[in-house]
Amino acid sequence: MNLPLKKAATKLNELTACEIVAAIDGGRTTCEAVVRACLDHIQLREPAVQAWQYLDREQAIGQAIALDKSGKRGPLLGVPFGIKDIIDTSDMPTEYGSPIYKGNQPRNEAACVALGRKAGGVLMGKTVTTEFANRHPGKTKNPFDPARTPGGSSSGSAAAVGDCMVPLAIGTQTTGSTIRPASFCGAFGYRPTWGDLRLSGVREAAGSLDTLGLIARSVDDLALYRDVLLGVKPEPVPEHTGPLRVGFCRTHVWPQVEPYTQKLLEGAAQTLARAGMQVRDVELPADFERLLDAHLAISSFEFSRNFAYEIEHHWDKISATLRENRLKSGLECSFERYREARAFAAQCRRAFADVVKDFDVLLTASATGEAPVGLNTTGNANNCLIWTTLHVPTVTMPVFKGPHGLPVGAQIIGKADGDRALFAAARRIYQALA
Amino acid sequence: MNLPLKKAATKLNELTACEIVAAIDGGRTTCEAVVRACLDHIQLREPAVQAWQYLDREQAIGQAIALDKSGKRGPLLGVPFGIKDIIDTSDMPTEYGSPIYKGNQPRNEAACVALGRKAGGVLMGKTVTTEFANRHPGKTKNPFDPARTPGGSSSGSAAAVGDCMVPLAIGTQTTGSTIRPASFCGAFGYRPTWGDLRLSGVREAAGSLDTLGLIARSVDDLALYRDVLLGVKPEPVPEHTGPLRVGFCRTHVWPQVEPYTQKLLEGAAQTLARAGMQVRDVELPADFERLLDAHLAISSFEFSRNFAYEIEHHWDKISATLRENRLKSGLECSFERYREARAFAAQCRRAFADVVKDFDVLLTASATGEAPVGLNTTGNANNCLIWTTLHVPTVTMPVFKGPHGLPVGAQIIGKADGDRALFAAARRIYQALA
Repeated sequence: MNLPLKKAATKLNELTACEIVAAIDGGRTTCEAVVRACLDHIQLREPAVQAWQYLDREQAIGQAIALDKSGKRGPLLGVPFGIKDIIDTSDMPTEYGSPIYKGNQPRNEAACVALGRKAGGVLMGKTVTTEFANRHPGKTKNPFDPARTPGGSSSGSAAAVGDCMVPLAIGTQTTGSTIRPASFCGAFGYRPTWGDLRLSGVREAAGSLDTLGLIARSVDDLALYRDVLLGVKPEPVPEHTGPLRVGFCRTHVWPQVEPYTQKLLEGAAQTLARAGMQVRDVELPADFERLLDAHLAISSFEFSRNFAYEIEHHWDKISATLRENRLKSGLECSFERYREARAFAAQCRRAFADVVKDFDVLLTASATGEAPVGLNTTGNANNCLIWTTLHVPTVTMPVFKGPHGLPVGAQIIGKADGDRALFAAARRIYQALA
Repeated sequence: MNLPLKKAATKLNELTACEIVAAIDGGRTTCEAVVRACLDHIQLREPAVQAWQYLDREQAIGQAIALDKSGKRGPLLGVPFGIKDIIDTSDMPTEYGSPIYKGNQPRNEAACVALGRKAGGVLMGKTVTTEFANRHPGKTKNPFDPARTPGGSSSGSAAAVGDCMVPLAIGTQTTGSTIRPASFCGAFGYRPTWGDLRLSGVREAAGSLDTLGLIARSVDDLALYRDVLLGVKPEPVPEHTGPLRVGFCRTHVWPQVEPYTQKLLEGAAQTLARAGMQVRDVELPADFERLLDAHLAISSFEFSRNFAYEIEHHWDKISATLRENRLKSGLECSFERYREARAFAAQCRRAFADVVKDFDVLLTASATGEAPVGLNTTGNANNCLIWTTLHVPTVTMPVFKGPHGLPVGAQIIGKADGDRALFAAARRIYQALA
């Protein structure tokens, strides 16, 4: 096997998706070279990071060579991507992070996988998920410190992108499963407006909260990937013009945020103000505190119904973590409580439109701080849960370092259906903070 | 093989689910006897009706014998049911009505299947669906006249229940795929409030419109089945007390409704008034007419993304009907048009709450009339499409006969989240009309 020179390979695997497409389009590299560079980096780093549940080197190279030969064009041409292993693939197993589905090979392929491939992307493999995208962790370690969690549930997707194994990966988010691991792994993460990106072929956790989550290494890559997965012609994110109105929103879970993260965010708010943005504090209505309980009722009720087959037939193969938390609370939750929670969430969504009406975006924490030490939990998701339940789009960007030199993200919150405006604002904020 | 006497068998297969559960619970029959009675009737009638995509007689009897031996109790104990073949089953193939998935055997099982079995129901087999729950018909014929359509897309589920092959079946509805075939096949059909019943393991058509649809032979059976699929302890539907306020709603598609159906419904409104109900005409806001276009944009946009894999890899195995209608319009629909349609639908949902605030339910047509002659189309779904897009629950009840003596349903519309109140009202209306 002829490996490219180490130096060149390192460069190619560090490119963003937009850079790869431009380089291939300009004849400066090939799909095969990019894929080989990523595979070489994976080979080097996978023993420490363990981001991949399934990876077939020859299959990936085969796809890349076929693309080079075909002369095909596409908005993701030659861009290697990874898919969280709760998402069905027609030519790779899908095990949902559970021993119940060891070796499971679906016949159909999720919409998000097919759309990515249609755009010229190269599916490298399946990234590690926690058990059924819930809390029980998989094998992945934080790429910046193997003693720390990568976050979850999109653990492998975040670690693979953060470690420059692939420029793009898909995760999902029902609580904080994309934003939090992206923050812990030094990547950009994006949770879209609920309902925009199709979930066909994605194992449902709690449908009224689930979305795909995209992980990348730039805001422009997130926007490009979103357009591909919407099945529309990609359009560059426009520049935000005029003064950017940023609401600094500590939220009611601020006391759970590490003091150093609080300081980093407060410093960032000042930096943005100095850069000419209109930064003001904004408070969520007091009753939004109840969103934590509402989210628990909604997600647990739905989760425990969605997994009726596994509960009935494979109880002994379900982790104690899942059995004793999500499933127990779900099976104990009445339909009245569930519906009350759903109604409360809908009411908060309407109220939130009023909260943000004088702002372009909000600025808040992506997670409590650096990835915590230990591989048994995936960390506190409360900084994400609010926005997930509100169905609004959010982006996390790797702009801070914590006391151990590990990545800490800043989370930018947009308005429902305002995903492109969010990208425009996030890019400007990144330029000011990075 | 010892078949039960024809008379007894005929009786058992004609029982409702509630009657079966009571009879087994009271020791008057067994799960095995019920299942054998249904199988015998299927054997007799299937050559003409062709409701089943997959049926394994011995497997069904085996499940019933095991239930009898186990001494298990459950709210659906011994009740045979059928499942539309776009819903995954762990021990029967799932082909989605498409040659692309011939022989496809999923590993997992849809939530609705597992919840039905957990309650003691006996899964008899998979009922015929149109191709991917869209328009291209399967092999099923109308049980009352084999020259006529059973309706679609839940063709086999409606035909099997209408013909007394099983007392319960699950379909789905994205436009009119449960209410219309139930009306054509003389069954009770129920489309729930959008979002209540989990769709895990159900092939997505257009997620922001899709729901399960239940088909049965009484309102009480629909309510029982709903509770089972919600994963809650079944509670009898309460009596509606006080005067029932019924809005007679012709809708803007009234000119498409056959004159005899118009007369039947107008007569029914008078009958209900004579029975002491408060019946008043009610008009939908004029702009609700645009819901037809909005539904087309939403369903086509989502459908064409959800089937990206099949479009890319199996275009030649997709019917011309699907390619040239739903997929073509979906691929041509811009994201802006799609989102505008979604926003308009959300606005109509809010407006509809105001329309119905002084009524308990609305009364309208389930379909244009009797099932039309011909097996190439599944009929006009416009009488259902409005309510589907409004996300409100509806029930169709077989209360009329058309000019050829074939069943014609009356559709009762409830309020979002008012499913049990809808059942209570529907039962009273049925008593008055039947």
